[in-house]
Amino acid sequence: MRTFGDRVVERCRKVGNPICLGLDPRIELMPEGGGDDPVSAIRSFCERVIDLVADKVAAIKPQAAFFEAWRARGFEVFEQVCRYASERGLVVVADVKRGDIGSTAAAYAHAYLAAHGDDEPFAHAVTVNAYLGSDGVRPFTDVGALTARGIFVLVKTSNPSSGEIQDRKIDGGLTVCEQMALLVSEWNEPRGETGYGPVGAVVGATYPQHLATLRGHLPGSILLLPGYGAQGASAEDVVPAFDDQGQGALVSASRSLTFPWAKEGAVPANWENRILSAVAEMHDDLARVLR
Amino acid sequence: MRTFGDRVVERCRKVGNPICLGLDPRIELMPEGGGDDPVSAIRSFCERVIDLVADKVAAIKPQAAFFEAWRARGFEVFEQVCRYASERGLVVVADVKRGDIGSTAAAYAHAYLAAHGDDEPFAHAVTVNAYLGSDGVRPFTDVGALTARGIFVLVKTSNPSSGEIQDRKIDGGLTVCEQMALLVSEWNEPRGETGYGPVGAVVGATYPQHLATLRGHLPGSILLLPGYGAQGASAEDVVPAFDDQGQGALVSASRSLTFPWAKEGAVPANWENRILSAVAEMHDDLARVLR
Repeated sequence: MRTFGDRVVERCRKVGNPICLGLDPRIELMPEGGGDDPVSAIRSFCERVIDLVADKVAAIKPQAAFFEAWRARGFEVFEQVCRYASERGLVVVADVKRGDIGSTAAAYAHAYLAAHGDDEPFAHAVTVNAYLGSDGVRPFTDVGALTARGIFVLVKTSNPSSGEIQDRKIDGGLTVCEQMALLVSEWNEPRGETGYGPVGAVVGATYPQHLATLRGHLPGSILLLPGYGAQGASAEDVVPAFDDQGQGALVSASRSLTFPWAKEGAVPANWENRILSAVAEMHDDLARVLR
Repeated sequence: MRTFGDRVVERCRKVGNPICLGLDPRIELMPEGGGDDPVSAIRSFCERVIDLVADKVAAIKPQAAFFEAWRARGFEVFEQVCRYASERGLVVVADVKRGDIGSTAAAYAHAYLAAHGDDEPFAHAVTVNAYLGSDGVRPFTDVGALTARGIFVLVKTSNPSSGEIQDRKIDGGLTVCEQMALLVSEWNEPRGETGYGPVGAVVGATYPQHLATLRGHLPGSILLLPGYGAQGASAEDVVPAFDDQGQGALVSASRSLTFPWAKEGAVPANWENRILSAVAEMHDDLARVLR
């Protein structure tokens, strides 16, 4: 059976890189700012970015919070943007970090990974917080399995305070995030023909010392690596996440690709070229270290 | 400064119980089913339930997943239902279990706890998954502090698999959920005039053996206790969560209050009375054990 992992590997081969563009639409950094209708402006901007990168990156990861901040209309645009990207061939990771149990998790799984009438599902994968254990994960894998959709479970996040819980050593000598990785590995069945299954893991590239260890605990999981670029991780830092064929991970970058002008005072007139240049630069940077 | 904890204590005193009605609108259990327009039916049903219980319970906890399952329109109704309950005096806990970092968490905090133009904020509190540590919590406490709004952090959840991560023993001899409780206690500042602060904790009443220990680690946190009723916890089980004045916790019940007919084949004609009876019974059951 074709799995979500197969989908990711195939897509990365097709575009020749493992780039996942993180789409965090921040009004204050957008070309026309919010204008009178910020929600429509977000939709236009996101669709324009998708047009620019659709044949140049493997995946796109819209961050739900920046849409939900605009409430129901923002949520509507979140769905529209996810579908727009999917129709253009991108693997779509809805970054919703949902995590609940039983029938509640099933409701989320239905919302994001199931077809709705004639509409294709919203996204190919969602991010999931599995602090609640298996009860919060199975409903997603149940819904997603038949259509090669999956999830990314938060294992080791890229932020400064991630160690407060995730790095604590537990009884068997493993850390909490390593224990989470072992659970992910149990949930990650069946593996597809590429060897990769439906349950991936989020592992921050900002902690390269953890990456090789966690990769070892996560055979057959696609790793989603935030932290490259604006958060400081380099191409060399992400190498241990890939298998010997240069497959098995997505390297995510948000601000450095979507808003390369973030540290400048104003949005440059050639902002579209700036995005294309940033993507090309990341492509070359990763190509240099992956084979 | 008046805190979210003060708000909860005041409200419980006013209605004479610590009941939090969990609102999980399941179409298949609703009086008119979905009908042709399930999203409108959800809104009508939820508003009717709120009318019934507005002066009889302390709080209401709409579960976002059952609204999000209907996507943008469901999200709109989620907001309408939250506001409707707030206008009728209920403490509103939006059960969204969000958890993200930095500016992303700030976007969620803004969505749920900040005023929008002339509109009051969406809810008085949200549930938060703090696997990512302090970075995911501070933005909520920053936004909510001035208006006595707060959060409930997932500490020990009520579901069967919660122990897979939460019960693992870490280096200092504490379990992961106890370590989370210590973090909650650090985040829970300032305490209000009742001694309760802005950061509460979700602790499943289905694990009474943990409840007294966790209460000890969580001075000044309002505890939100799911698991009473349909999930099997009794009034006796929740007693250790309360202080010697019978304050400091909310006992949450969803299916047993909102759908007391869930195990019967059909919705009874007197469904409104059934809800009122279930609430009265829970009120009496808790009054029996709390002083």
